[in-house]
Amino acid sequence: MGKEEVIEGSIWVPEPGLRAFTVAVLRRLGVPAADAKVAADVLMAADLRGIGSHGVARLPRYVTGIKGGSIVPKGSSRTVKQTRATALVDGGNGLGQVVARRGMELAIRKARQTAVGFVAVRNSNHFGIAGYYSMMALKAGMIGLASTNAAPLVVPTFGRTAVLGTNPISVAVPTGGDEPFVLDMATSVVPRGTIEVYDRQAKEMPHGWAVDTTGHSTTKPRAVLEALAKRLGGGILPLGGEGEEFSGHKGYGLALLVDILCGALPGAATGLDVYADEDAANVGHFFGAIDVRAFRPLNAFKRDMDKLLRTLRDSPKAQGHDHIYVHGEKSFAMERERRAKGIPLGPKVVESLRKISGDTGVQWIA
Amino acid sequence: MGKEEVIEGSIWVPEPGLRAFTVAVLRRLGVPAADAKVAADVLMAADLRGIGSHGVARLPRYVTGIKGGSIVPKGSSRTVKQTRATALVDGGNGLGQVVARRGMELAIRKARQTAVGFVAVRNSNHFGIAGYYSMMALKAGMIGLASTNAAPLVVPTFGRTAVLGTNPISVAVPTGGDEPFVLDMATSVVPRGTIEVYDRQAKEMPHGWAVDTTGHSTTKPRAVLEALAKRLGGGILPLGGEGEEFSGHKGYGLALLVDILCGALPGAATGLDVYADEDAANVGHFFGAIDVRAFRPLNAFKRDMDKLLRTLRDSPKAQGHDHIYVHGEKSFAMERERRAKGIPLGPKVVESLRKISGDTGVQWIA
Repeated sequence: MGKEEVIEGSIWVPEPGLRAFTVAVLRRLGVPAADAKVAADVLMAADLRGIGSHGVARLPRYVTGIKGGSIVPKGSSRTVKQTRATALVDGGNGLGQVVARRGMELAIRKARQTAVGFVAVRNSNHFGIAGYYSMMALKAGMIGLASTNAAPLVVPTFGRTAVLGTNPISVAVPTGGDEPFVLDMATSVVPRGTIEVYDRQAKEMPHGWAVDTTGHSTTKPRAVLEALAKRLGGGILPLGGEGEEFSGHKGYGLALLVDILCGALPGAATGLDVYADEDAANVGHFFGAIDVRAFRPLNAFKRDMDKLLRTLRDSPKAQGHDHIYVHGEKSFAMERERRAKGIPLGPKVVESLRKISGDTGVQWIA
Repeated sequence: MGKEEVIEGSIWVPEPGLRAFTVAVLRRLGVPAADAKVAADVLMAADLRGIGSHGVARLPRYVTGIKGGSIVPKGSSRTVKQTRATALVDGGNGLGQVVARRGMELAIRKARQTAVGFVAVRNSNHFGIAGYYSMMALKAGMIGLASTNAAPLVVPTFGRTAVLGTNPISVAVPTGGDEPFVLDMATSVVPRGTIEVYDRQAKEMPHGWAVDTTGHSTTKPRAVLEALAKRLGGGILPLGGEGEEFSGHKGYGLALLVDILCGALPGAATGLDVYADEDAANVGHFFGAIDVRAFRPLNAFKRDMDKLLRTLRDSPKAQGHDHIYVHGEKSFAMERERRAKGIPLGPKVVESLRKISGDTGVQWIA
């Protein structure tokens, strides 16, 4: 629900061109055509929905991963173990987006047969935005769940070093007339990107976002980013902030739960081991699909969803506010706007994409 | 993970006697023996684990509910619809604990057959602590999930009236040598009970816990409790606090997700409708069980769980702290202590239980 900062000096690029560039780059690196399209689709979804940190800005890291061997361009996932309702998938170190999309497709397929499908994935990589996968369930009339663990950035309550990732949880729920409910949240109080924005703007952060190497809240973004980069300690706080006064232990619990479902359950890396091996990040994911019709007629459910969301939207507003949002609403609005206006790319991102263009021979579009 | 306040003037009562009293009272009100034992077991679990607000202190409300007809003492739940992996259960307005325990048993039974079981429940009542039900899955080598919606107390981000309940989520995960991971969290920043404690102690609350009738954070507990009681507005903030600065919209999203899974999915009441009908609260629950063995050998999973939890516990501590907790740890320690020392009951609770004793003829134990 946060607002994305459009960086000064950004250029606005039409989405179809950016998508074609992304596909072409991945193709040139040996990614099969269908897989390149999937990866580009997930990156474009992030840029369109205003989560630029998980969009095409990530492409350089994927290129580096493929060239360095930690991401296998033709890596194909395989189902290691399955029941009617579950599967354990090994991602074969492939592109996270490709592995994840197949994992979620499998969960939905199982839910068509068995009302519920859960798929845990190991040996994968960064998969982009969790909301992309949870939303795949919507067309099937299902509730979708997607989650991933990630590199350590989050400090547990009363700790002073990052052990857990920002470990996002996304759940998408179908509605009737309205846009669907799409919760897509890091379990940290803010994403790393927000701290980077404050650093660029040389602004002090509020207390309760991040801790320094003593384990206590700091307002200095640069101190946090530098200590993290040098692995000196400190990091981002879990949702709920420092200590227990605002229930930071709950955010810590949610982040840990994600590491359990995405890491321990499939046998992927957990905690400090995520991305610890330079040759294989061993990121893990967890996907779920629940067929609403196993419980109630879909139309009755959708009617109740619309009513509940309307009750929230129509309830009295806090002084100085005129809108109560439902989760996903801001992203859908952003998506409409950016399909028309294009996607803003900051100077650094443009520079990195131009470099990729030079390295791969794929023509840059802007 | 919060600490429970032991109220001044409390007496310490041995758990077995308190349990026997609770069973006898419920029996006297027409609750079948087996059901009375279940309800007492859930209440004792709350008192033992330090969640006194959900323990025997609730008995007067259940007595009132049974006498007033909103809780059916012989109410028995029935499965309305089911698949191999799912069930929709109607609780028949029975005691929440009895309905919920059967619901979770059904989820576990289904997971034994199908690896995964999900049960959504409508027409139930207050079920006590969510952790009781999630933990039922542990012995079966499963991950357990339990959740319930509740009376409106929580104000959505940018709102100024309570629309959602404190809607708890509990997930329990088996471990090897150590105590299991048991996350049991309201999706609000604090429970109502904490605001009541501050009111009793005439203390100011920190900003970020609750809002007054303007929809903005207040430090006055009395103002919040009075406005809630008179339905004038205000209420508790979702995890993450006021507005979006500390991601209060995430806690709001989690509370809404619980209302979707517990309310809209089974067709129970949602939002303002929970407890709106004096004759039938129509509280809804959602239970899940996931068999770890569908993904990995249980021992391998438990070994990885122990390793992950050890990594967290052993990681460097914040200055001034010497312990990083794992979720459930404080409650297990409290339970050991209280099995030995007894359960503390504040003067008001004792008075209300003495009154029940007088009304029902069941001898009070202290």
